[in-house]
Amino acid sequence: MEERKISRAVISRLPRYYRYLGDLMEDQVERISSNDLSKKMHVTASQIRQDLNNFGGFGQQGYGYNVKYLYTEIGKILGLDRSHNFIIIGAGNLGQALANYASFEKGGFILKGLFDVNPRLEGVAIRGIPVRMMDELQEFLQNNEIEIAALTIPKSKAKEVAELLVDNGIQAIWNFAHTDLNLPKDVIVESVHLSDSLMKLSYNVSRHREEQNK
Amino acid sequence: MEERKISRAVISRLPRYYRYLGDLMEDQVERISSNDLSKKMHVTASQIRQDLNNFGGFGQQGYGYNVKYLYTEIGKILGLDRSHNFIIIGAGNLGQALANYASFEKGGFILKGLFDVNPRLEGVAIRGIPVRMMDELQEFLQNNEIEIAALTIPKSKAKEVAELLVDNGIQAIWNFAHTDLNLPKDVIVESVHLSDSLMKLSYNVSRHREEQNK
Repeated sequence: MEERKISRAVISRLPRYYRYLGDLMEDQVERISSNDLSKKMHVTASQIRQDLNNFGGFGQQGYGYNVKYLYTEIGKILGLDRSHNFIIIGAGNLGQALANYASFEKGGFILKGLFDVNPRLEGVAIRGIPVRMMDELQEFLQNNEIEIAALTIPKSKAKEVAELLVDNGIQAIWNFAHTDLNLPKDVIVESVHLSDSLMKLSYNVSRHREEQNK
Repeated sequence: MEERKISRAVISRLPRYYRYLGDLMEDQVERISSNDLSKKMHVTASQIRQDLNNFGGFGQQGYGYNVKYLYTEIGKILGLDRSHNFIIIGAGNLGQALANYASFEKGGFILKGLFDVNPRLEGVAIRGIPVRMMDELQEFLQNNEIEIAALTIPKSKAKEVAELLVDNGIQAIWNFAHTDLNLPKDVIVESVHLSDSLMKLSYNVSRHREEQNK
């Protein structure tokens, strides 16, 4: 499929389409019109058509989208049609939570290793993957093809560890540390800042309370 | 402070300002120019000035921002100057990870309860808070003033539990379930869809790989 340069906004909406289409498949829905999808997703039908037109369009006028086809194609665009080996740095609660998401594996994300500095975690296995100590990381990366590293460590260590990862061939970092990583431009960083998200919630709660007290 | 209607984009950037200002305070920095802040945050100085002007502006020309003052004022805007009682529904790894973030407490988010359906977790305490069973939830909400609930449960149960929470006075939901909650408009929902985030990463990794193979 020929692709133009797709905007970040469109990209950031694709996983949501993929999620809804997956739900429709679970519900045995074979076809859906952009209007019906629009109602489900609370976005306009025209936005859906515009977004999907970036990828050549998948629907036929008056006929709707073939759910399974669209799901598969969006999956390909998202790179879910091949596997991605990943490791988790930080085997605390959050690292273990990520390691336990079996649904990641369905999406092609294969957990290959878990690392921590805490000797009490050494050898503890999560879904068959033993926690290794950080001093084994470099050798592990040299002997395994790992694409993605999830960072669930305190911010004080995040930059140093991220640089070590990049120096050893990691191309992408899924960053949960409470800091932005300033890495070379060709390293892909996707950050999940939980406290930022909680603050947005807090902002909205406070505004809501003010409205009610007016 | 007088406030106009602030755009969602500005709001979503405030936590990041707050985080950087917190880091500056830790580093004992008392004043910073919008230019220096801009370099640190990798956004333009004019964006910073524009964003902060929404709240009346906090800087003096040629003099820069007083870090502590700006940190405090943004904290107030974000509603961090008062406490928010919250509970966590789902005491698995992710729920426990959230329960263990002591830094949330510094931001005024006070964990009051943890709930799960798994009887093996009953009574297990995380930072002094015992895990309660879901059948105690309704009574608990009636006897405690809880503002926010974090949902770290499977999507199959998420809608039902969210409705129960809303019926019992919860105003805001921090949603980690892999589904969107369709709740009444006056309920605040902030979703963290980890798999969506991972798919964005996967998209970028795949595009990056294509570029390299060209």
